[in-house]
Amino acid sequence: MKVYKINDHIMKYRFGSPFETHSVVMQGELTDKGKIHRLQVQWEETLKINYKMDKEDIIWGLGESQRGMNKRGGIYEAYCSDDPRHTPDKKSLYGAHNFIIIDGLEFFGLYIDFPGKIIFDIGFTHKDLLQIEIEGKDADIYIIKGTKLYEISRNFLELIGESYVPPKWAFGYQQSRWDYLDARAVEEIAEAFEKHEIPCDAIYLDIDYMENFKDFTIDEKKFPQFKQFVKKLREKGLRLIPIIDAGVKIEAGYGVYEEGVEKGYFCIDAEGKPFVAAVWPGRVHFPDFLNPAARKWFGLKYKVLTDYGIEGFWNDMNEPAIFYTERGLQQAIHQAKRSENENLDIYSFFALKDAFINLSNHPQDYQSFYHQVEGKRINHHQVHNLYGYNMTKAAAEGLQAIDPDKRFLLFSRASYIGMHRYAGIWTGDNHSWWEHILLNLKMMPSLNLCGFLYVGADTGGFSGDTNAQMLIRWMQLSLFAPLFRNHSAMGTRKQEPFAFDEESMAIMRRMIQLRYEFIPYIYAEYMKAVFHKGLYFAPLAFAYEDKLSKRVEDQLLVGESLMITPIYQENAVGRTVWLPEEMLLCLFGPGEKLQYSVKFQGHHYIGADLDVVPVFLRKNKLFPIGSYGKNIEALDHTVLRFIGFVEDQASYHYYDDDGITYRYKEGIYDEIAIFVEKKSDDYAIHVKKKGSPKVKKLLFDLIDRRGRILEKTILLV
Amino acid sequence: MKVYKINDHIMKYRFGSPFETHSVVMQGELTDKGKIHRLQVQWEETLKINYKMDKEDIIWGLGESQRGMNKRGGIYEAYCSDDPRHTPDKKSLYGAHNFIIIDGLEFFGLYIDFPGKIIFDIGFTHKDLLQIEIEGKDADIYIIKGTKLYEISRNFLELIGESYVPPKWAFGYQQSRWDYLDARAVEEIAEAFEKHEIPCDAIYLDIDYMENFKDFTIDEKKFPQFKQFVKKLREKGLRLIPIIDAGVKIEAGYGVYEEGVEKGYFCIDAEGKPFVAAVWPGRVHFPDFLNPAARKWFGLKYKVLTDYGIEGFWNDMNEPAIFYTERGLQQAIHQAKRSENENLDIYSFFALKDAFINLSNHPQDYQSFYHQVEGKRINHHQVHNLYGYNMTKAAAEGLQAIDPDKRFLLFSRASYIGMHRYAGIWTGDNHSWWEHILLNLKMMPSLNLCGFLYVGADTGGFSGDTNAQMLIRWMQLSLFAPLFRNHSAMGTRKQEPFAFDEESMAIMRRMIQLRYEFIPYIYAEYMKAVFHKGLYFAPLAFAYEDKLSKRVEDQLLVGESLMITPIYQENAVGRTVWLPEEMLLCLFGPGEKLQYSVKFQGHHYIGADLDVVPVFLRKNKLFPIGSYGKNIEALDHTVLRFIGFVEDQASYHYYDDDGITYRYKEGIYDEIAIFVEKKSDDYAIHVKKKGSPKVKKLLFDLIDRRGRILEKTILLV
Repeated sequence: MKVYKINDHIMKYRFGSPFETHSVVMQGELTDKGKIHRLQVQWEETLKINYKMDKEDIIWGLGESQRGMNKRGGIYEAYCSDDPRHTPDKKSLYGAHNFIIIDGLEFFGLYIDFPGKIIFDIGFTHKDLLQIEIEGKDADIYIIKGTKLYEISRNFLELIGESYVPPKWAFGYQQSRWDYLDARAVEEIAEAFEKHEIPCDAIYLDIDYMENFKDFTIDEKKFPQFKQFVKKLREKGLRLIPIIDAGVKIEAGYGVYEEGVEKGYFCIDAEGKPFVAAVWPGRVHFPDFLNPAARKWFGLKYKVLTDYGIEGFWNDMNEPAIFYTERGLQQAIHQAKRSENENLDIYSFFALKDAFINLSNHPQDYQSFYHQVEGKRINHHQVHNLYGYNMTKAAAEGLQAIDPDKRFLLFSRASYIGMHRYAGIWTGDNHSWWEHILLNLKMMPSLNLCGFLYVGADTGGFSGDTNAQMLIRWMQLSLFAPLFRNHSAMGTRKQEPFAFDEESMAIMRRMIQLRYEFIPYIYAEYMKAVFHKGLYFAPLAFAYEDKLSKRVEDQLLVGESLMITPIYQENAVGRTVWLPEEMLLCLFGPGEKLQYSVKFQGHHYIGADLDVVPVFLRKNKLFPIGSYGKNIEALDHTVLRFIGFVEDQASYHYYDDDGITYRYKEGIYDEIAIFVEKKSDDYAIHVKKKGSPKVKKLLFDLIDRRGRILEKTILLV
Repeated sequence: MKVYKINDHIMKYRFGSPFETHSVVMQGELTDKGKIHRLQVQWEETLKINYKMDKEDIIWGLGESQRGMNKRGGIYEAYCSDDPRHTPDKKSLYGAHNFIIIDGLEFFGLYIDFPGKIIFDIGFTHKDLLQIEIEGKDADIYIIKGTKLYEISRNFLELIGESYVPPKWAFGYQQSRWDYLDARAVEEIAEAFEKHEIPCDAIYLDIDYMENFKDFTIDEKKFPQFKQFVKKLREKGLRLIPIIDAGVKIEAGYGVYEEGVEKGYFCIDAEGKPFVAAVWPGRVHFPDFLNPAARKWFGLKYKVLTDYGIEGFWNDMNEPAIFYTERGLQQAIHQAKRSENENLDIYSFFALKDAFINLSNHPQDYQSFYHQVEGKRINHHQVHNLYGYNMTKAAAEGLQAIDPDKRFLLFSRASYIGMHRYAGIWTGDNHSWWEHILLNLKMMPSLNLCGFLYVGADTGGFSGDTNAQMLIRWMQLSLFAPLFRNHSAMGTRKQEPFAFDEESMAIMRRMIQLRYEFIPYIYAEYMKAVFHKGLYFAPLAFAYEDKLSKRVEDQLLVGESLMITPIYQENAVGRTVWLPEEMLLCLFGPGEKLQYSVKFQGHHYIGADLDVVPVFLRKNKLFPIGSYGKNIEALDHTVLRFIGFVEDQASYHYYDDDGITYRYKEGIYDEIAIFVEKKSDDYAIHVKKKGSPKVKKLLFDLIDRRGRILEKTILLV
C-alpha cells in the first residue's frame, strides 16, 4: 500500500496498481504515513474493508441505488446493470458510484476508485457491520475528512472535479416517449403542446428514428429531410434529442461498422475478433471506449447529427446492455430442445425458463470480451463500470471538438464517478409506480453527492401505465429536478400532459408553468452548486443536525433556500412534514394565486390537493421566481419576484448567463447580490449587480415570523 | 333483470342465469321494483356498470389487491392469479373479492357475484369514472345500504355468512420455510425454538414432505415413522402443518390419481379426457372441485394426514397455478428452434423470451379445460375464481366429516367470497420488501371487509432476502394479525428468529412474547368480529368520520380498543401518526416495562426504536393482556391485566372458549363483562361473568386524560 496526501482533508491509499479511471482530478503527494485509520483492511485475493458501525451511524451515498438515503440495511453491488425492474431488492442499477459518508461516532467519507465489481454490505448481513468487498487487488481508497457533512461532500466534489453544465434550455420541460415513430408523430406532439399552451423545450427521439437501430443514421422514410425537420421544430421553440446506443450494428456497407472493424475500434473476444453481442438491431459490436483513438472516432460521429442541427443527446444501453450472445442463445435453445417431450417438474421447468430469462446481461458474457488499453488486453468484467462513462466521455469530447464553445445537452444511462464532469444521467427504466416517485426523491441527493448534478427520472414512469394523478404528483417532484423529462415506453399508456382528461391537463399545464416560473432559482442554484461544489438536492441532515432531520427520507433541500415535501401516496390530499426550524410555507396553487403561512418548528400535516405544490422557504432565505413562457428562451426576466422569509437578515446571489456557451468560465455572466435587513416594521434592501442582467425590476414579498407581508420594489439601474 | 329484496338493506339484481357460487347465504324474495338506482348498467355482450364518482369519493374493498385501502386510481382484475411478484402494477393477486363500498356523496356497497373475470377500473382511465366490466352476461349484483361504513360492512357480512373460526392455537406464532427438507431439519427448528425460549405453536411442511409432490403421501425416506414424529413434536407443544396442492400427479400406481381417473373426478379437456397441466411434480390432473362428488372424494383424502395426527393444512396452488401445458411448451420450444442461427432483433428476441416467460398461467390454458356440473360442461375460464374456493370447501367439508366437532386450521392461497366461511387465507408469495409490510397492512382490512378474518402475510417476506430489522418491523405488524406466520422460500436468506445476531433475536423473542401476551385481546376480538359480523382490522374511517381519518392508509384499528401504527420504513426510529381523538399511547418496550402517555387529537411524531411497539388505546376502551407462555396451550390466564383509558366510562366483553371445538356454538364459552366508571379520583368497576372463565384475578391499570394511573385489582369469584 502506498499513501498519498491529496490535501489537508483527503488521503489516498493505493493498493497494487489500479487501472486509471480518471475519476478524480487531484493527484497528491506520496507520504510515508502508512496506516488507514478507522477501517480494517484485508488485502488478499480481494480487498476487503470492514467497519463496525455504531447503532446510530448513518451511511450516506452510493448514488444510483435502491433503498433509503441512509443506505444502512442493504447490500449493493457496484456493477452497472441494465435491469428494467427496479424492485427494492435490486442490488445494482445503471450506475456505479462508490462514495459513501459514515456519519456517526466517526465521521468521514470513503471513496473507492475501482472499475470492477464491489459489494457494499451495509448492515445487511449483520446489522452493525459495514463490509466492503472489492473484486480485485488493485484499487485506490480515499478517506475524506470534514467537520460537517457539507464539508465532506465539498471536499469530495473538489477531488472529482467540476460537474457538467448543460445549456439553459435543458432546464425546460422535455417530452419523450418510445413511440414517436416518425416525423408526423413528433409534429403532432409539438402541435399538441402548442395547441394546449403547455410550455416545452425538447422532444425526444427514441430508437426508431434510426435506420434499423444503426447509430448515426436517420431513417429517411420516417424522417425525410431531417435537417429541415429539425429546423422547423426549432422554429417552434423545440429541440429534438436523439438517442445513441452503445452497440454498433453488424451490417455490410454500414460505415460505422466497417470503419470500426477496419481500425480495430471494437472490443474483442478471446480470439481477438470483434466481440459479438445482440441488442436492439440484433448482432452488434461494442466500440472499445477505453481506447482513446476509438473514443475520438466515436465522439466525432456525433457530427452527423449536429450537422442536422441537433444540440442534445442521450446515450443509452451503455452498461453495456446485452440482450443475448450466441453462447447464451445456443445454450438456451439446446436446453429447450432437450426439454421436448420431457415431463418437467419444478426444478427442470424453472431451469428451462431461467435459461431464457437469464440470457440478458449474463456475467459470463461480460467476462468474455476485452478492451485493448496501451497495448494490454483487459478483460471487460474488470473494468465494466467504465464503459458507459467512456462512451459519454467520447461524446462530450467529440462535441467539444465539433463546437468548442457550445454547451450541448448530454446525459447517459450507465455511469461511474468521473463521468459527472462530462454529462448528466437519467435514472433509467423505472415504472409507473408510486414507490418510484419516492425512490426518485431519495436517489437524487445521493447522485448529487457523487458529483451528478444534472439528474432526473422518467417522470410518470417508463414502464407500466400511469394515471393522471400519479403523473401530476410526480411532476410536483420533477419540477424541481434539473432534468425534468416525461418519458414512457412503447405499449404503455400515453402520458403526455394532454393524454388525460381536461381537468388533469390543466393541472399539469400549471405544474409545467411553475417549473418555468422557478427557472431563475433553479438555474442559479444549479450553477452555484457547480461552482461551489455544493449540492443542488440535499438530505435535510446536510443543513440540520438534529436527530429527527437525519432520519427524514422523504423531504429534500433544493438549493440554499427551499425544502420540498412531495406527495407520493395515491389519493393523499396532504402529508406530514418535519420542519427542523420555522419556515415559510408557500402554497403554489391553481392560477397565479400564492398563499403564505409561517410554520413553527415541528411536525405538521400540510394539506395539498392535487393542484397545489407546497414549497417551504427556509428562514432568512430568498426565493426568486419569474413569469413562465412557452420555453426557456421565451422567458422574460425583466421582472423577478423575490419571496423572502426574513427574521433578521437574508441574502441571495442571483446568477444568470447566456445559457448556451462556456463564456461564464471567463467571468462573463450576470449576478445580482441582494441583501435584505429587517428594520422593526420595514426592511432595508441592498442590491448589487455584476455583468448586465436582464432583470430590471425586483419585486419583493417579504414575510416576517408573524406572517406579515410587506411588498417592496427595487429598480435595477 | 330480476330484482330480489334480500332484506331492508340489501337488493339483488339478477342478470341472466348466473352460475351458482354459494357465496351468499341469503336468498330474498322476488319483487317488481325493477330499477338499479345510482348505477348505469349496460347489458350487452358483457355486463358493464358505470358510476360517476365525486371528487371526494373513496372506494373501499376488493380484498386481496394492490394499491391503497382506497382503491381509487387503479385497475383491478378479479381473476385468481399465481403471480409471485407483487409489484404495484399487478392487477390480480390470488383472490377474487368483488365487493366495494362507495363512500362519498352516495353511500352504498356493491357486490358482484360472478365467478369469471371482472375488470374494475376505479378512476384509472378517467379519474372520476368507476367502470366495471363483467366478462359475461350472467351475474348477480347486490346493492347494500347502510348509514355508516360499519353498517354496510355488517350488512354485507350478514349476506355472505359467518367467517371461519380456527382453533385457538392457530393464533400462536407459526414458523415456516420451504426448506425443512426432512424430519431432522424440522426437529432442529423445534429444538432451536426450545433452546432460545421463543414461543411457537406450529411448524410448516412445504412441498418436500411428500413423495414426489404427490398429495396425501409422506416421503418415508425423509419423514420415517411420521405418526410418531407428529406425536413427538406435539409433545414439545408444536403442531405440524402440511401443504396440499391442487394438482394430482399423473403416475401409474398412485391411488389418488388412479381413483380420480376411474371415477371421472378430474377436469377434462375439449375431448373429454382428463386435462393435463404441469406444476410441482410435472404433469398433473386437476380435481374438478365444482363436482360435489369429486369434492367429497378429495376432502376425505385429508384423513390420510389427520390419521397421522395432523390438525391443520394450507391449500396451495389452487388458482389453479399452471407452470406449463404441453401446448405452451411445444409452442415455446418450436419458437426456440426457429430462432436458432437467427439474428434476433429487439422484437424477435423479446418474442422468444416472452414465449418462455408466458408459459405459466396462460389464458389460453385456462380456456382449454372444463368442469362438469350437473351434467353440463362448463369452461373453466368462466368459473375460474371458484376453483381454490371449492378445493378449500372440499377440505373443510372433509375435515368436518372426519371429526365434526374439531376445529382444524385451514387456509388457502386462492379464494373467492364464500370461502371465508370455510377457511382463512394467507396473502401468497410476497417479497422481503419494506413496501410489502405496507401492502400487508393495507390489504388486511380490505380482506376483513370481504369476509376473510383469519388472514396474514408471510412475515419477513417469502421471496428475497430480509434483514433483521425488516423482519422485526414486520413482526410488529403481524403480531396483531390472526395468522402470524414467518415463511420464506428456498434459496433465500434464512429468517427464523434465531437466524440473525443475538441482539436481533432477543428483540424478535420479545415481539413474539408480546403476541402471546396479547392473545386474550386478539382472540376475544377475533371471535366477537365473527359473531357480530364486525371487522377485526378496520381502516380508521370505520370509526372516525373526519376528513383526515378517511385518507389514512398506514394505520389500522385492531378490534374495538386499539389503533396500531407500524413502522415500514428502513432505519426509521419513529413515525408520524394521526390521532382522530385523544388516545393513550402504550409503549411496549424490552422486558415487561410498559409506558403510558396520553396524546391529544392531532398529528404526532412517535419515537419507536426497533425494540419498541407503540399501541394506541382508544378513549373509553379497555385492553386485556396476559402473560406469555411457550405456546397457546401453556398460557396461564388466571390473571389478566386490563389497561383502560377512561374519560367517563368504558366497558369490555372478554371472551374465551375451549379453543378446539365448536361447542361455543351451543353457548359453551366464557365471558367476562367489565364496566368501568370514572368517579372523580377513583373508578367503579363492575364485573359479570358467564361460563367458567379461567381468569380469577383482574388487574386494572386505569389511566385518565391527565395521565394519572390508578391500579385496581378485582377477584373473580
